[in-house]
Amino acid sequence: MKKIEGGITGAKGFEAAGVAANIKYQDRKDMALVYSLKPAVCAGTFTTNVVKAAPVLWDMKVVKEQGNARLIIINSGFANACTGAAGMEICRKTAEEAAKLLDIKAEEVLIGSTGVIGVSPPLEKLLAGTALLIKEKSATLVSGNDAATAIMTTDTVKKQVAVEIMIGGKKVTIGGMSKGSGMIHPNMCTMLAYVTTDVLITKEMLTDIVNEIIADTYNMISVDGDTSTNDTFLVLANGEAGNPCITDKGDDYQIFKEALFYVNEYLAKEMARDGEGATTLIEMKVVGAANKEDARKLAKSVIGSSLVKSAVYGRDANWGRVLCALGYSGVMFDPDLAELYFGSAAGKVKIYEKGSGVAFSEEEAKKILSEKAVTIFINMNMGDESATAWGCDLTEDYVKINADYRS
Amino acid sequence: MKKIEGGITGAKGFEAAGVAANIKYQDRKDMALVYSLKPAVCAGTFTTNVVKAAPVLWDMKVVKEQGNARLIIINSGFANACTGAAGMEICRKTAEEAAKLLDIKAEEVLIGSTGVIGVSPPLEKLLAGTALLIKEKSATLVSGNDAATAIMTTDTVKKQVAVEIMIGGKKVTIGGMSKGSGMIHPNMCTMLAYVTTDVLITKEMLTDIVNEIIADTYNMISVDGDTSTNDTFLVLANGEAGNPCITDKGDDYQIFKEALFYVNEYLAKEMARDGEGATTLIEMKVVGAANKEDARKLAKSVIGSSLVKSAVYGRDANWGRVLCALGYSGVMFDPDLAELYFGSAAGKVKIYEKGSGVAFSEEEAKKILSEKAVTIFINMNMGDESATAWGCDLTEDYVKINADYRS
Repeated sequence: MKKIEGGITGAKGFEAAGVAANIKYQDRKDMALVYSLKPAVCAGTFTTNVVKAAPVLWDMKVVKEQGNARLIIINSGFANACTGAAGMEICRKTAEEAAKLLDIKAEEVLIGSTGVIGVSPPLEKLLAGTALLIKEKSATLVSGNDAATAIMTTDTVKKQVAVEIMIGGKKVTIGGMSKGSGMIHPNMCTMLAYVTTDVLITKEMLTDIVNEIIADTYNMISVDGDTSTNDTFLVLANGEAGNPCITDKGDDYQIFKEALFYVNEYLAKEMARDGEGATTLIEMKVVGAANKEDARKLAKSVIGSSLVKSAVYGRDANWGRVLCALGYSGVMFDPDLAELYFGSAAGKVKIYEKGSGVAFSEEEAKKILSEKAVTIFINMNMGDESATAWGCDLTEDYVKINADYRS
Repeated sequence: MKKIEGGITGAKGFEAAGVAANIKYQDRKDMALVYSLKPAVCAGTFTTNVVKAAPVLWDMKVVKEQGNARLIIINSGFANACTGAAGMEICRKTAEEAAKLLDIKAEEVLIGSTGVIGVSPPLEKLLAGTALLIKEKSATLVSGNDAATAIMTTDTVKKQVAVEIMIGGKKVTIGGMSKGSGMIHPNMCTMLAYVTTDVLITKEMLTDIVNEIIADTYNMISVDGDTSTNDTFLVLANGEAGNPCITDKGDDYQIFKEALFYVNEYLAKEMARDGEGATTLIEMKVVGAANKEDARKLAKSVIGSSLVKSAVYGRDANWGRVLCALGYSGVMFDPDLAELYFGSAAGKVKIYEKGSGVAFSEEEAKKILSEKAVTIFINMNMGDESATAWGCDLTEDYVKINADYRS
């Protein structure tokens, strides 16, 4: 697998665009498009929130009922959630306008929205933006950058990645983009993430892969414990690579799955790193858990703890908060067996074992916690399963951003 | 029921004290005592955290194995959690010392600790503090105040309450004290709370009442979603009121339960109000839920949302975040049926119904949200059950306090 430059336009036969449609923000790109020149097999997963945004309901229908999709239109600024029948109407009209302009079917158009809940993006601006996107779309790196930029809300950096693999002697490319950076919590999917690939694969196999990789990528990140109404992950595969079609779970399936996992783990980690107000990426590695589900629960519980997040922000090795968060995860374990370490590029230090803290250098711990990425590592010594979750520190800026977001 | 002045020394036959033992803090009271002149029936509930502090394990044993208790010794500063066998030894030695000085049994002594996890309170200071507490204890209001002050950590105000009721022609008094104010989350009990009463009641009936009232008092508050290792609620009933003993669930049981509920609801709300860094008490009232458990889950989900908490801090009627938090509560409901209001001493305004926002005055909403106590009120229109949860806003000060707590 080779990492290459770019993102959503990396794979053959995909175009993208990002334009300023003045949906909510002024003077910045706020609408994005992803277009497959040929019909693409489509799979996805969506928020588990009972309150689902209109575009989520729209996309769920497309993914379930259609074999293929051609286009994704996304806006930032307003979430089109809690907008009733009017919200669905906006999705339908946008899809119809785009379909007319591109001579495709409205049922092949996917829609995404992110921003303030309770407000629909204004239809006229959406329609004008859609026309502009279609006019400007191209397969260039620049267009991919533009799309990744346009879907940002409180994100401070755009998030994209692309990789190449070989399948059946053919070069297959996978590229993606995502956005955070608040209302992020592990419960599928907690954000918007879009991936395109030119692999040739059946819808059934693509769907299986997506279901396999979600649990250990997007579902393992948390910024603030709030599972959004709009979370969407979509992958389009248009078959342009010309590889032998992946129709079963053989070697080609595994090779592709591994690469798609990498792309999504990357996009998920980037969201955690760029969490609202964050200064530090926190990686929580659990090993030695009794079973996989326990490992995930333990890792997520620590990554979601406001007190752990605040301690990391303060560069304070307040390890008792880690033990506390493990303890209320809902997983049964023996605290006397657990071993806890803090680590980063600056080193690794053992903090706790056999039921109590061990002597460690506070200075060294502070140095370790002062890196931009910090790992909390725990061996439960209860079994062989492991899991990793990603989050970020809790800062005054998180509060500032969110006390002041809507207005 | 009549509210009276005071707290833990309100009921007949109880003494208290609070002294400075220099456990961790300098120049402030950090040890407290509650003493029953006669053996008292005892009931309590404790943290559900798998990682339980030594004093929690000690108290669980006392409550389970002993019919009676006489004394509670509490320290603030260090939690005596994650301290292994040494932590238990400290509980035992403190109890033995107190028992010797008072000529009671060590098994009648309850222990409480609160503060930084991973550090035991130093034994010599505990023993010296215990002797001083016993020397200074008295039944006065001042001693009650001292005890309520000594158990504070990051609390900004002491929390105490007392009420009088009549049972069988006799005046019965219930008084209590509690402390927060971080690591507070609804999952029994999330804090330290101690209640004394002179009612005459069997241990069985007292235990039943405690189990009945916990779910709607301490388990309905949240400051930061972290369930502590040390949460403890204890009630001692010494029978000094001379009422006919409560041995069944008749009228006297109901009268006493109602008053005990009031005392604990009060102490719980005070903890939420004084949450770390908080400027506003948030009350989340859910009515019209399909069942009681749903009502509680919905209320707790909103009260725990960092985004709702930040919005209240910003006096921003960002109601979409409330809908979002209801949606990920794990409860199934129809968002189209729900009706949402914001209210406070400044008025009440309808915000959402029939699946989307209703027009409301932003100015009026801001005024409502600017009060020191704010109610978010939702009618699910799914059934007849209701629940109320309490929490507080999320502020920069919460982050400052917790990025800087241990050091």
